[in-house]
Amino acid sequence: MGDRITLSRAITLIESTLEEDRDLAEALLLEIYPETGKALRIGISGVPGVGKSTFIDSFGTYLTDHGHKVAVLAIDPSSGISGGSILGDKTRMEKLSLNPAAFIRPTPSAGFLGGVARSTREGILLCEAAGFDIVLVETVGVGQSETTVHGMTDFFLLLMLAGAGDELQGIKKGIMEMADAVVINKADGNNITASKIAAAEYKAALHLFEPKENSFQTEVILVSSHENTGMQECYTLIQSFNKQMLENGHLQHRRTLQNTTWFRDAVHTDLISTFMKQENKDQYFKELEQKVEEGNILPSVAARSFLTRFFS
Amino acid sequence: MGDRITLSRAITLIESTLEEDRDLAEALLLEIYPETGKALRIGISGVPGVGKSTFIDSFGTYLTDHGHKVAVLAIDPSSGISGGSILGDKTRMEKLSLNPAAFIRPTPSAGFLGGVARSTREGILLCEAAGFDIVLVETVGVGQSETTVHGMTDFFLLLMLAGAGDELQGIKKGIMEMADAVVINKADGNNITASKIAAAEYKAALHLFEPKENSFQTEVILVSSHENTGMQECYTLIQSFNKQMLENGHLQHRRTLQNTTWFRDAVHTDLISTFMKQENKDQYFKELEQKVEEGNILPSVAARSFLTRFFS
Repeated sequence: MGDRITLSRAITLIESTLEEDRDLAEALLLEIYPETGKALRIGISGVPGVGKSTFIDSFGTYLTDHGHKVAVLAIDPSSGISGGSILGDKTRMEKLSLNPAAFIRPTPSAGFLGGVARSTREGILLCEAAGFDIVLVETVGVGQSETTVHGMTDFFLLLMLAGAGDELQGIKKGIMEMADAVVINKADGNNITASKIAAAEYKAALHLFEPKENSFQTEVILVSSHENTGMQECYTLIQSFNKQMLENGHLQHRRTLQNTTWFRDAVHTDLISTFMKQENKDQYFKELEQKVEEGNILPSVAARSFLTRFFS
Repeated sequence: MGDRITLSRAITLIESTLEEDRDLAEALLLEIYPETGKALRIGISGVPGVGKSTFIDSFGTYLTDHGHKVAVLAIDPSSGISGGSILGDKTRMEKLSLNPAAFIRPTPSAGFLGGVARSTREGILLCEAAGFDIVLVETVGVGQSETTVHGMTDFFLLLMLAGAGDELQGIKKGIMEMADAVVINKADGNNITASKIAAAEYKAALHLFEPKENSFQTEVILVSSHENTGMQECYTLIQSFNKQMLENGHLQHRRTLQNTTWFRDAVHTDLISTFMKQENKDQYFKELEQKVEEGNILPSVAARSFLTRFFS
């Protein structure tokens, strides 16, 4: 899987929900499995408007300048009705999209979180087998998707902005607790002083948290994606993280956790489709749905009746 | 269920995951079911920092000043590791939290989206039975939770800010398509001109979308939660929406959809817990998990093996 066209096609295959594609996808994954696991998997999160794409564009370019092959995947469960970003991912990363040492995979345009998560996990493996040694996984949504991305990466980078005193409101404590690095973007021009103040506040807040499971001390770094500052600090931090986690065995531990989380998620996700396909569940389901439509039964009670019939 | 303490306790009951509480909760819901459905259910969404809480504080107060009883519920799936907002919901809504005609329920501090969604749906019914005629459901996350809130409310209000030309980037097309009103917050002081420009841009963008299922023309409204402007326009819009939807039967149609969505969600959510409790699934699950931990099997293949054993 040397080239990017082959990689693209392979990802399209694993994103497919057709049953015959699924068989093929699993055969492919089994074949490449021994070649996987060699990249550092970095999750990048932050609220919309924080500048995730410009940061990835700058940081990814910095990484390729230092000899790395960089793949960018995105996880985006927010594609509700018609799905898809208004602006494509490629146009959002101008430098990186033209870079031969980089691979950008636009967000899958549809699907629920469970399905998107599976595609991203399998996409990481494909990128690794194709020789990319750094995989950046961007979350586009805010909410459940951070936890999902945290659960499939080694290093979790949270992008933030210096705000008007209410920095902590947008980002939940639970998300900050997952971060291995808090990176304050747009620390340039008139925004530098505010960014330094925000950095001090975050550092203070981080000290109040319990130590993380990997016992890595979360760093706060100021960057400007536009002026390309702070990229070296991010790189140094990630390198020191990687070294430390390899030495103390935590990287291996985290990978194991990523796999068991994946297994559990896959059981949950596939259970629904597998279950509904069995026997003639459809008829009883439709009967109950009809009652729900007519307002004759409380939906949660109907759900319980349905499940009780098949598990008793 | 006249008073707020009783209502609070009832909501605590339905949020409980203990099996005996669940039986009690369903009995309570069945009893109050005939008293439900009378409120207008309004979903309020927008990225963190857009000012959802201050808007709800101002708009909720406007509504109680006009004789309404207002309940505020929140849906927040982002409570990953330790859960919970840094700032509690009550302190975020200063006026409304002291208002005897209002009821604010802080975000449940834990749980996955499916569980939180069920609690919120049941919470809406309890608030209606307690006599609240307007229920505001706030999404705290961005992503999947909008779709969830849209699926349980009658009117979907999207809060936005005039930004630096990149307004459309943060909000997905799929989310804008769901909106019955796009409300531009913080349209005050120096921000007024930018807000008017943004309003014109959104209007233009909205015209490019397909007509919504309820055929209601999405309006763009400028508000300032701090200066209390634009509240009347929001109120008038919601009233005219309600009137129109009652007349053309769409409100009833939407309620039916809310119930069938609820049924489907409940089946999916409860299926996992019900399934895992059956027989001695645990042993085979642990066996496979062990193999996954040792890296001897691809997690998605393990998941498929697990499910195939029980459905074949």
